[in-house]
This record gives sequence, structure tokens and C-alpha cells, in this order.
Amino acid sequence: MNMKALTSPPITEAVTELKGVAVSLFAQLANGRLPGAGITRDTYGAGETRGHDVVVNYARQLGLEIAKDAAANTYMTLPGRNRDAPKIIVGSHLDSVPNGGNYDGAAGVVAGLLAVSVFKKLGIRPACDITVMAIRAEESIWFQVSYIGSRAALGMLPIGALDAKRFDTGRPLSAYVAECGGDPRAIEKGIAALDPKKIRSFIELHIEQAPTLVEAGQPIAVGTCIPGNFRYPHIRIHGRHDHVGMPRRFRHDAVAAGSELISAMDRLWAERDARGISMAITVGRCMTDPSAHGLTIVPGKLELSLDVRAYDPLELASLEADIVEVAKQVEERYRVRIEFGTRAEAPIGPCSPKICDGLADAAAKLGIAFDRIVSPASHDAAAFAQAGVPIGMIFVRNENGSHNPQEHMEITDLLDGTAVMAEWLRKELS
Amino acid sequence: MNMKALTSPPITEAVTELKGVAVSLFAQLANGRLPGAGITRDTYGAGETRGHDVVVNYARQLGLEIAKDAAANTYMTLPGRNRDAPKIIVGSHLDSVPNGGNYDGAAGVVAGLLAVSVFKKLGIRPACDITVMAIRAEESIWFQVSYIGSRAALGMLPIGALDAKRFDTGRPLSAYVAECGGDPRAIEKGIAALDPKKIRSFIELHIEQAPTLVEAGQPIAVGTCIPGNFRYPHIRIHGRHDHVGMPRRFRHDAVAAGSELISAMDRLWAERDARGISMAITVGRCMTDPSAHGLTIVPGKLELSLDVRAYDPLELASLEADIVEVAKQVEERYRVRIEFGTRAEAPIGPCSPKICDGLADAAAKLGIAFDRIVSPASHDAAAFAQAGVPIGMIFVRNENGSHNPQEHMEITDLLDGTAVMAEWLRKELS
Repeated sequence: MNMKALTSPPITEAVTELKGVAVSLFAQLANGRLPGAGITRDTYGAGETRGHDVVVNYARQLGLEIAKDAAANTYMTLPGRNRDAPKIIVGSHLDSVPNGGNYDGAAGVVAGLLAVSVFKKLGIRPACDITVMAIRAEESIWFQVSYIGSRAALGMLPIGALDAKRFDTGRPLSAYVAECGGDPRAIEKGIAALDPKKIRSFIELHIEQAPTLVEAGQPIAVGTCIPGNFRYPHIRIHGRHDHVGMPRRFRHDAVAAGSELISAMDRLWAERDARGISMAITVGRCMTDPSAHGLTIVPGKLELSLDVRAYDPLELASLEADIVEVAKQVEERYRVRIEFGTRAEAPIGPCSPKICDGLADAAAKLGIAFDRIVSPASHDAAAFAQAGVPIGMIFVRNENGSHNPQEHMEITDLLDGTAVMAEWLRKELS
Repeated sequence: MNMKALTSPPITEAVTELKGVAVSLFAQLANGRLPGAGITRDTYGAGETRGHDVVVNYARQLGLEIAKDAAANTYMTLPGRNRDAPKIIVGSHLDSVPNGGNYDGAAGVVAGLLAVSVFKKLGIRPACDITVMAIRAEESIWFQVSYIGSRAALGMLPIGALDAKRFDTGRPLSAYVAECGGDPRAIEKGIAALDPKKIRSFIELHIEQAPTLVEAGQPIAVGTCIPGNFRYPHIRIHGRHDHVGMPRRFRHDAVAAGSELISAMDRLWAERDARGISMAITVGRCMTDPSAHGLTIVPGKLELSLDVRAYDPLELASLEADIVEVAKQVEERYRVRIEFGTRAEAPIGPCSPKICDGLADAAAKLGIAFDRIVSPASHDAAAFAQAGVPIGMIFVRNENGSHNPQEHMEITDLLDGTAVMAEWLRKELS
């Protein structure tokens, strides 16, 4: 007797039948680029807009209501029985980094459309509206501002963000928003398309940006938390440039000091890693002073960037205290001065425990293996969490990391994630 | 009874009387720049040539024989009793780094002239010629070639060196040599102005380029050795660029790996330092890849330079083996590949033990406190040692390092060094 067949509800079958649709949507989104070739859906550029056209075209076929907001986000709505009830939004972003992959972001929009398609197929009219949201401008590389589309929709975009220049063209965000049919003046006034009180929950499916699920051999995971961080983009170590023959005890070597600081921070991480604490410490940039450094000069200056992320505010605070302490020891030991410079931070975005449990129940019911994991990366869902909306996340197994052309997701894994989303929606809204 | 007065020979008095001459020569060399203002005597440029004019002018007053060679080095000779006997050369270089100090190099030429002046004053005719050599082009910053003047004089300048471009103008060394009255074609043919067999010894006085003597409270030191080195100008650490949220166990972080490599090398040095082994390890340049690095990217590439210097060939070999071993451990631990790239080396330049002892005896006889120290830096004397000439070095206390306008030497300390040189010459050549 086949247990799977016995317990498999119609959701699984309906989703499986949509495999061809999923393949077709990703092919259209790739716009002729073959797998392995880099994808560029530039934020508020032609690439991203073409992506919105692709999903709108499919949403029209499904008979969904289509709307745009001042930030040119796209809303594709399956009307519910009570149109005044707080709605559920599912979705993700459609832009990509330059020369990135086809699934980072887009997978969540496609999954949302497929889930809604399942409702249509099975003839389920949900209790409230389900809106599939194709979000603009999640990839902060283009304008160096995070969550532009989702925060604009929630009326939370910081003042001045519209003046941010695109990194390669130098033209301001406001010009790009206008070109995509948006209304920069409405955004500036803080006019919100979405009222958090009228959103019952926000669910985002996204490829995992680490190989945890590949390692675990599982197709999907239920996300428990989006990390918070503190960042010091320009830490400067001030030592003294000296002749290469200077004995050790007289040196003020910024590179020796910086290396010890970085190694000590790595040890802080290794210790917490061993205790199972999720977090990350990254020194992404590290540069001596090109105007003064040299093969035969003791380096007097080092600049480095620091991103520290974790999932527990107490852990973040403890890490920052430990790093400050380590830096003090390095200052003393290497006779240098460490200037931390400007500090930025982002709050932790915890997923709703109730939604986590609901998604886990749905996966269990469908017989889909899953883990509960923290999100390695930041996501638009964090903006909704910050606005007070209960959020949930589903991660799909992905090989070779993200933000590169080798990023790879199996469509069957996406369908597993989609089935969990659809089953959860069914149970919530039947 | 005053012991000092009893044992103090006429050398001390004669040197002391030359204080005004020393002050005047340095003032002329500074060419109107006040103490603390940067000095630029550019290699084979107007600054260096003006320096040669200053010392030639004083040498003429002393009645020395003046000569130039194909590399435009200046030779100022006090004839000896036997003019065919191998001669003693004393001297140093007259060029400076851009915006450097007035004493680095020039102190050795002034000291040589003062020592010869003492011979004249005391009416001593030496057994052999004493030549004060004002050497060209020691500071390798200008043309990125070391010991240009001394190696050209010895016929040892490498093929192609004359094509080296000055770092700021891009014009070739050959053009500059010709402008200073030199003969690049003769240098190219390897025509040597000096025959090592006809040089009895080469003595160089130089400011110390570290604060060892300041710390010890002593005016001078007898140098025992010029360091040898091995250099890897472009070590590349190949990891993998990844998303900032990537868990630790999946990372191939080039900066974490490079920091551990640098910290481990620093520990190798600290251990040897504790055992009293003279050496230095310098990572002067350290750069992530500006085209790919970022605040939120795990760095996949790091490039760094490495200069390792020591005074014992076995120590150099042991250091290199230890560094290679440490690099292997880092490669494994951080899942990166370390490419050492091109390697350069310079042989150790040991000072003649006989000359060291002779200089020490001279200092003791004159009642001048001294240490024996290794040279922190490289010097023209190393080129003479490589040619097989017995060399000796005298270091003079110097504050604030070298290669900067704050470099500072007391004239009385220079006179102590000069007295030691003159006394040694007197004993050798009476």
C-alpha cells in the first residue's frame, strides 16, 4: 500500500501539474538567456520591468486583478469572499544583481502565482484576498538602499532615498522610478500603498543563499528569522608608516593589527559556531592606503568593512561588546588606534511562530521533508515584519550560492515549496 | 686627574673643531629648507646633483682629487703614500626619498669628508688613497632598482636596469644618467669604475633607520650585518566570493585566511624575537579586489606583499619553510588556495669581523659609548660586500625613523661617528 498516495491531497497533484507553467515562466523571465548565462534584471531598469510584464501576462490569464503603486510594485490579486478583511500577501522581488541568477527573487513571485493558480484549479475561493506582490528594487547593489520597493509600499522609505544614484550611471532613483511609471513625489510624501493593519500576513518564498539544504539533502525549509545586523562600513586602523627594517617592538603596524583583529573576530565566531549560535562576521573590504603603502614600508593605515549579523538582539549586543573589547586589546598590543567610524544597523526580522508552525504542519501533511532554518540573507519580508505584519518564509534548496550565474534550483524543489505555501493558504483561508 | 683628557687623542679635538663645517655642509645640502621641512634630492635629478656640487666644493677646498664615473658618482680622493696600493673607500649616497630628511645618506658623505679633513689637519699622509665616494641613486623608490650608483661603479648593474622608468615622470633611467653627465652606454657595456681587488675596504656611516640607539641612549653603533631578504611582491589568496549570510563552514573567505596567515607569521616573528633573533616580516600591501569586494560580500580574493629579512642564511631558510608550512595549514583550514607568485631575494651583507673589531677598538679608545647592532635597512655597502670587498658600517642615533621630514640626528652624534671612522683610518693607514 502506498502511504504517500493515500495521504497526498489534491494540492500536490494540482501543483505538480503546474511544472510546465513554472518552466515556461522562468524561461520568459530569463528572456532568452540559457541556464548558466548571467541574468541582469536591473532595479527600475528595462530588465526588471520586463520581468513585471512577464508575471502580469500570466496573472491576466489567471483572471487576477492587476494594480501598480507609486513605487511601480505590481499587485496581482485573487479576490476573497470578504474583500474588506485583511489580506494575505505572498511574493518577493523581481530584480537581480548584475550578471546574477534567474531564481533569486523571481522564484517567490512565480511560487505565489502558482499557489493562486492552484486555488483557481481547485475552485477554492479564499476567505480574504490573496495578493501576489512582485516587489521592486530589493537588490541594494544598484542604489545602495535596501528594500526600496517594499518600504516605499509601506510608506517607510527614508527621506532622501530617492536621491540615491545608481552605482553605474549616477542617475537618481527618482528618475528611474518615474521611467517605470511610478510616482516619486507620492513616495516622497510617504503615501503608502499598503496599510500594515490590513495585511493579515506576508509570506515570501526564496531560494536559500547558502548550501544548508543541499548539505541536509532536503528540498525546502521553513524560515524562522531574518538576521539583524550592525555594520561599520569604514573601520580605520591608524598606525605609523615606517622603514621595512624597523624592529618589531618599535612598530605601529596597521596590517599586523588589522589581521589580529580579524582573526580574533573569526575566533569569536568559531566559538559561537561550536555552540550552535547562528550568526556571521564578514570583513568584505580590506585595503592598505594605495597612496602610501609598499613592499618595503611598514603599513601605517588599514581600512576595512565589517558586517555582523545574528538572530538574537542579545547575541548582537554581546558580539559588539566582544569586538570592541578585542579591538582595545589589539590597539594596546600593536600600538595603533582603531577608529570604528560610522555605524549602521538593521533590526532582526523574526518570523511569526504561528506561521512557522502552520507551514511546518503543511509540509508534514504533504510528506515533504523540511528543516527549520534561519535566513542567511535579508529579505523584503523583514520590511513587513518591521511594519508589524506577521511574516513567514519558505526557503528552497539552491546550489552554488546566489548572486552569480551558477545559482541553481530544481523546479521540483520549487514545486514542493509552492505546495507547502498553497496548503498553508488553503488551511488558513478555506 | 681627568682620564678622558689623558687618553683623548688629537682625533677627538680635530673632529670637534669641524662641527661648524658639518653644520654648514648640512645647511648647504638642505638648500634653504629649514629643519622639519621635507628634503627632496631626487635620484639623477636636480636635487641630487646639487648635493654633489656642495660636497665637491668642500672637497676642492680640502685639495682632494675629484673624479666622476659613467654613473656620475663622485670620487674625492686624499692621495696615499703608495698610490698603487688598494684604497679605502668611505661614503654613502646623496639622494633622498621625496619629502625625506637631510641626513639619510648625506651623513655618510659628510662624515667621510670630515675624516679626511682630520687627516689633513693632523698632517697624516695615509698609507694608501682614501676616497670619499658620493654615491648616486640609492633610494629605490625613484626607479624601483636598488643600489644603482654603487652597482654601476662595480660593473654589477643588471641588464635592462637603464630602461627603468622614474615612477613619477615615466622617463627612463638612461636619460637621467646622461643629463647628469654620466655615460649610460659605458654602464650598459659593464665598464666598471671600481675593481673590487683594488679596494681594501669600504666604510659607510649612516643614520640608524630605527630607534634602537635612542632607546639604548648611545650615540653610535658598529654595524655587524646588512640583512638579506626574500620577497613575494604579489601573494594571491584565492577563495570564493559569497553572499554575506553564508555560514562559516561553507566559506572560502580570502580575508579571514589572509588575516590568519599574517597573524601566524607575526607569531613566528614574536617567537624568534623572544629568542633574540634579528629579523623582520612585513606585509606592506594588503588589498581585497576592488572590482568585486563589498560590505556585504564574503571576499574571494586578497593580494598581499611580503618582505622577510634576516641576518643569517639558515634563519632565512627556516623562516621561509615555516611560512610555507603555515600557508598550507591556512589553505586547509580556510579552504582557499595561496599562490605565492614571483619571488625575489637579496643576499646577506655581513660586515667584516676584523673591521667591526677595529671600529669597536677605535670607539673604546676615544671613550665613545657604542653598541654592535645589525642594520635594519639595506645600504650601498651591501653591493660592495657582494663584490667581495670587506665592509664596515657605523650607525648614528636618529630620532623619528627615516624617509620623513621629522628624521633627526644630533651633529655631536655624527661627530662621534666621524671620530671613530677617522681613528680607525689612522690606525689602519698610519
